[in-house]
Amino acid sequence: MMLKPIGIIHSTFKDPVGTPIQPVFAEGAQGTVEVFPKHADGLLNLAGFERIRLLYWFDRAGPARLRVVPFRDTVERGLFATRAPCRPNAIGLSCVRLLSISGNELKISGLDILDGTPLLDIKPYVPKFDAFPQSQAGWFDANNECRTKADDRFTIQ
Amino acid sequence: MMLKPIGIIHSTFKDPVGTPIQPVFAEGAQGTVEVFPKHADGLLNLAGFERIRLLYWFDRAGPARLRVVPFRDTVERGLFATRAPCRPNAIGLSCVRLLSISGNELKISGLDILDGTPLLDIKPYVPKFDAFPQSQAGWFDANNECRTKADDRFTIQ
Repeated sequence: MMLKPIGIIHSTFKDPVGTPIQPVFAEGAQGTVEVFPKHADGLLNLAGFERIRLLYWFDRAGPARLRVVPFRDTVERGLFATRAPCRPNAIGLSCVRLLSISGNELKISGLDILDGTPLLDIKPYVPKFDAFPQSQAGWFDANNECRTKADDRFTIQ
Repeated sequence: MMLKPIGIIHSTFKDPVGTPIQPVFAEGAQGTVEVFPKHADGLLNLAGFERIRLLYWFDRAGPARLRVVPFRDTVERGLFATRAPCRPNAIGLSCVRLLSISGNELKISGLDILDGTPLLDIKPYVPKFDAFPQSQAGWFDANNECRTKADDRFTIQ
């Protein structure tokens, strides 16, 4: 199972420290998704979706760890109960707002992604399949730490 | 960028034909996620999440295509405006219901995944970050085709 980037994500965040940790904490953060020309034909009909999900590679994450202290908590949690980037398969997932499309470039907001991140896939966000507003969310529901920006705890040192 | 499976998804669906195309069309479909023992420690604290997102490899999808007629429509759409499995990076994403955890096995429902599918990652579903119930969804909002189960259009022939 080999991955090939289908594009590059361009943002104002050059350093993990201070980068928003979720799109909901990055409402004002705009950037662009550059889809390589050979894949641009697959963008047909994407206009009309208010939100899209970007799958990307956490290219600056440190090695995988099975226990982490997540940004939103103060105690150690199992990795798969968190969204920390240091995963066995370092795939990131962000549901961002699609502002406009021009050729092979998407203008987006709600960007919680480092500049230069390799793009793996784009999937449309469809509320009737993807929104479960009442779902219980384990330790996240307790809101133990109100951090909205990253530090360097998951970064290659 | 190399992927290694972290487990296997076990379901009752052996053949793409007739497999539900979304978790919301698979409410009664139960199965198990077997996480390989070396990664099982990362499951700590996952109990308590009502839903989890499984990332997996579409191992029986045909070659990537940039235009497809999706299951829920009757006309050709750009691949990235669909969730068809024949993608440049064949990563699938399903938000399933977590029923219970026993050691390295998760019992789940809402399974729209073929038996034997390689698991890549598990991420917790957190409504305050992931639910956007009012988001516009392009051609999906028109509901042009009410199909809930797959046929063989995206399968290796």
